[in-house]
Amino acid sequence: MKNIDDLQALIDEEIRRQYRILEPRELYEPMWYALSNGGKRLRPVFVLMGCQLFSDDIRRAALPALGIEMFHNFTLLHDDIMDKAFMRRNLPTVHVKWDVNRAILSGDALAIQSNIFIASCDKEILPDVLRVFNTTALQVCEGQQYDLNFERIEEVSVTEYLNMIRLKTAVLIAGSLEIGSLIGGAAPQWAKRVYDLGDMIGMAFQLQDDFLDTFGNPETFGKNIGGDILANKKTFLLIKARELADTEQLNLLKHYYSSEDFNAEEKIGSVKKIFRDLEIDKMTVEKVHEYSNKALSILAEIPVDGSRKVELEKFTRNLMDRIR
Amino acid sequence: MKNIDDLQALIDEEIRRQYRILEPRELYEPMWYALSNGGKRLRPVFVLMGCQLFSDDIRRAALPALGIEMFHNFTLLHDDIMDKAFMRRNLPTVHVKWDVNRAILSGDALAIQSNIFIASCDKEILPDVLRVFNTTALQVCEGQQYDLNFERIEEVSVTEYLNMIRLKTAVLIAGSLEIGSLIGGAAPQWAKRVYDLGDMIGMAFQLQDDFLDTFGNPETFGKNIGGDILANKKTFLLIKARELADTEQLNLLKHYYSSEDFNAEEKIGSVKKIFRDLEIDKMTVEKVHEYSNKALSILAEIPVDGSRKVELEKFTRNLMDRIR
Repeated sequence: MKNIDDLQALIDEEIRRQYRILEPRELYEPMWYALSNGGKRLRPVFVLMGCQLFSDDIRRAALPALGIEMFHNFTLLHDDIMDKAFMRRNLPTVHVKWDVNRAILSGDALAIQSNIFIASCDKEILPDVLRVFNTTALQVCEGQQYDLNFERIEEVSVTEYLNMIRLKTAVLIAGSLEIGSLIGGAAPQWAKRVYDLGDMIGMAFQLQDDFLDTFGNPETFGKNIGGDILANKKTFLLIKARELADTEQLNLLKHYYSSEDFNAEEKIGSVKKIFRDLEIDKMTVEKVHEYSNKALSILAEIPVDGSRKVELEKFTRNLMDRIR
Repeated sequence: MKNIDDLQALIDEEIRRQYRILEPRELYEPMWYALSNGGKRLRPVFVLMGCQLFSDDIRRAALPALGIEMFHNFTLLHDDIMDKAFMRRNLPTVHVKWDVNRAILSGDALAIQSNIFIASCDKEILPDVLRVFNTTALQVCEGQQYDLNFERIEEVSVTEYLNMIRLKTAVLIAGSLEIGSLIGGAAPQWAKRVYDLGDMIGMAFQLQDDFLDTFGNPETFGKNIGGDILANKKTFLLIKARELADTEQLNLLKHYYSSEDFNAEEKIGSVKKIFRDLEIDKMTVEKVHEYSNKALSILAEIPVDGSRKVELEKFTRNLMDRIR
């Protein structure tokens, strides 16, 4: 069995193998610029891990896995325009390096190229793979729309938030695992169960990300701690805090989340204190554990040798360990 | 056999049948707004005409045909952002009626929904249908990029222009016909030949459009005559005229195409006079006839009963008749 590092390396190798700047260069350069800019290759690794659950031949999942990574990068390209994000992984975003038109059009081309790579799987499983992929893709758009809506809505409930991150993040991880399982030869009902497993991993992953953005270790997190707080982002932490806060805490939160003029350190410190006083950190950790444990119990059901499950189990346990 | 009006009606019926505004409404409303806004339904009609060449059962092509119309509307949605177009078919464009983010995201959702409808065809032909569709879709993006490039380039050759309109317009008409043929049960080699036929029709169609924009009858054309001239668009007419103009004509063209301050009627009149003096109108008509006649000779090759070809023949002859 290959470990996650091996699988990431396999994806990077496939990217190098497929890399070619066709004409017109103006279309293809931004596509490969976005795609070559590193990242954890999480989603394609899940395709390969899904395949590895049922088959030793993971090579045949490499191209569809790359398709999933391209789809993910297409969504990043367009999301970065919508969110007015200037940097991604320490490089200027496509709409900043070139312009908005290039980012729209090369994003579209990435999405189409992702379809081509996904469709390279065996004819027998193609209808099932496409059903999973296209359903997932549409849900990711729905998730992004909810995320945009939330910026304009004052009150977002925990249920609405969990639904949004499920659509925006979890379903693509779930779909990646299911597509990989189908390519690996899983019976459809087990592939569906692997989807559920991915759904739980995806939820735990996003809530862990919310937690680490505020309470993570600056040396290992990779991004600046407190970024979500400074950007007034409605995360699980903030939504839960608003739900539980007393009048004084609510007024303080309102002050920090509406004022334009504040000291960044002070805002982060005060909001974190409210979160801690309300035990939001503990609740988020519990929620991550809840989803991760559900994932582990689904994984235990899958009728394959335990050695095939090692990497998925390791990944899931790591989600919990990093925020213990 | 159904005529073009019947086929258009069948598409409009399918749109009404599939119409549903799901949640989040912010995503689905602009999708169906764009799709419900009339138009000639040319591309899906070509899917049905391709199917009708080989089969009496055109119902099974209805959903993939709607998929093609959705793909076309996705490109319009994004092109309208890039081209800063404010109106389409007498209604505000999506990025004007709502905003750019909504137009990007609902365009993405349209593209994904188009994949879902295309993939609804029979399992046996799915890989072939997807190969044609995805290749075509990527070429349409390439065509749009060349079109954007041409706005910034002074000198565009006739060859470059014809390549651009082939990618931006002709291949989708060709791909629509081929996909329809495959659904109708055509052998792959004949489906490919029908693609070539569509390629010729597509070229003739776009060049006819170039011609009519300048020399058409204001009462039947539907758009204002001279729009391309006022927008400084590099059409076949202008590119060919620049190629053949003497120094005096070239200076006059340069004057009208660089000056910001001119009388619209005067500019249209003067440019049209240069086109006429150089016989560009005649040359364009000849080019449309050339492509149309090639289309007709390919159509004659297709080994099916003549009654199945009537509508395609009528459409192609009409391309020539309208600009005689």
